[in-house]
Amino acid sequence: MTEPLDFYFDFSSPYGYLMSEKIDAVAAAHGRKVRWHPVLLGVIFQATGSHPPVAGASSKATYMMHDFHRSARHMGIPYNPPSRFPLPTQNAARAFYWLHGQDCALARQFAHAVYRGFFVNDLDISSPDTVLDIAAGLGINRDQLATALQAPEIKARLKDECEQALAAGVFGSPHVIVDGEHFFGADRLPQIEHWLASGGF
Amino acid sequence: MTEPLDFYFDFSSPYGYLMSEKIDAVAAAHGRKVRWHPVLLGVIFQATGSHPPVAGASSKATYMMHDFHRSARHMGIPYNPPSRFPLPTQNAARAFYWLHGQDCALARQFAHAVYRGFFVNDLDISSPDTVLDIAAGLGINRDQLATALQAPEIKARLKDECEQALAAGVFGSPHVIVDGEHFFGADRLPQIEHWLASGGF
Repeated sequence: MTEPLDFYFDFSSPYGYLMSEKIDAVAAAHGRKVRWHPVLLGVIFQATGSHPPVAGASSKATYMMHDFHRSARHMGIPYNPPSRFPLPTQNAARAFYWLHGQDCALARQFAHAVYRGFFVNDLDISSPDTVLDIAAGLGINRDQLATALQAPEIKARLKDECEQALAAGVFGSPHVIVDGEHFFGADRLPQIEHWLASGGF
Repeated sequence: MTEPLDFYFDFSSPYGYLMSEKIDAVAAAHGRKVRWHPVLLGVIFQATGSHPPVAGASSKATYMMHDFHRSARHMGIPYNPPSRFPLPTQNAARAFYWLHGQDCALARQFAHAVYRGFFVNDLDISSPDTVLDIAAGLGINRDQLATALQAPEIKARLKDECEQALAAGVFGSPHVIVDGEHFFGADRLPQIEHWLASGGF
């Protein structure tokens, strides 16, 4: 089969960032493309009754903050713990979908720039100005994007994408679907590779 | 460093079972031993305010039941989904600690037999009779063990082990500690191998 993989993520998700740095190359090694779907974990958690994995000051929350960084080192990916975490990501996600309607390769570049801005350069990606700055750095028209971020149709688009993700069974970030098979978490990347190489196992 | 690894698990934990089939060999490849610590996840979750990962009928719960089986195939480990799940495991854990006081190699064999009984042969490991049968199959005196399972000191021992695990920062199963570094989940086995090979990364 040669259907694209579907990659669901929130721009505030550290494991989503780790997956974003690897999934295209893993898919390409098996002749596959990837469709990227930024979603809002707040919406997903509310609808599924799930909990954010790092809520509170528990030993598990402490562990996970440590594990983000160690997992990045294990995977050979740059990572600097953001000083503000987690952050709302609707502006970044709306910008992605607006760009995607015009130039899907540029939207992919923008997604990488947002993730690296947050998890390497400690940018406040919740701020519309920061989102516009990141876009402008890629040659995108700042004023057009600023207008688009306020447009009802782009807000409706993000809402619709979250609903479609829920309908597809997405409950967290990163969540990858390969030929109907669901993989949750950056740590499932070896299983995704195994699945692509074997056509299932 | 050549300190043993500490491996915490609940006998009802599928990912704990997967880790139990691999951790000794991974440690041995780097000249390390492993101390096994069965604990009760109910006690751990109550104390840490965590939630069982597969509570309810959510899309996440459905995913995890599927992921247990797929992860076992990925790791090359036999797995048959138990018909009763999860189960209380205090009898199996108490039997382990009683045996461990007499013959730690036999206690390890018993732990493997309990896990395989549950996750391969669908035994009801919550039942004292089943625990006694598994032990008898390894040549352990059934009557002595039956008496030990009722002894206040062995009940206190398990309680104490759960408290020590909590004090060490354990919040789930499997949870492995290597030279003070914590690894949660069977999917962290590659990171444990990386850590042992490099002395940290």
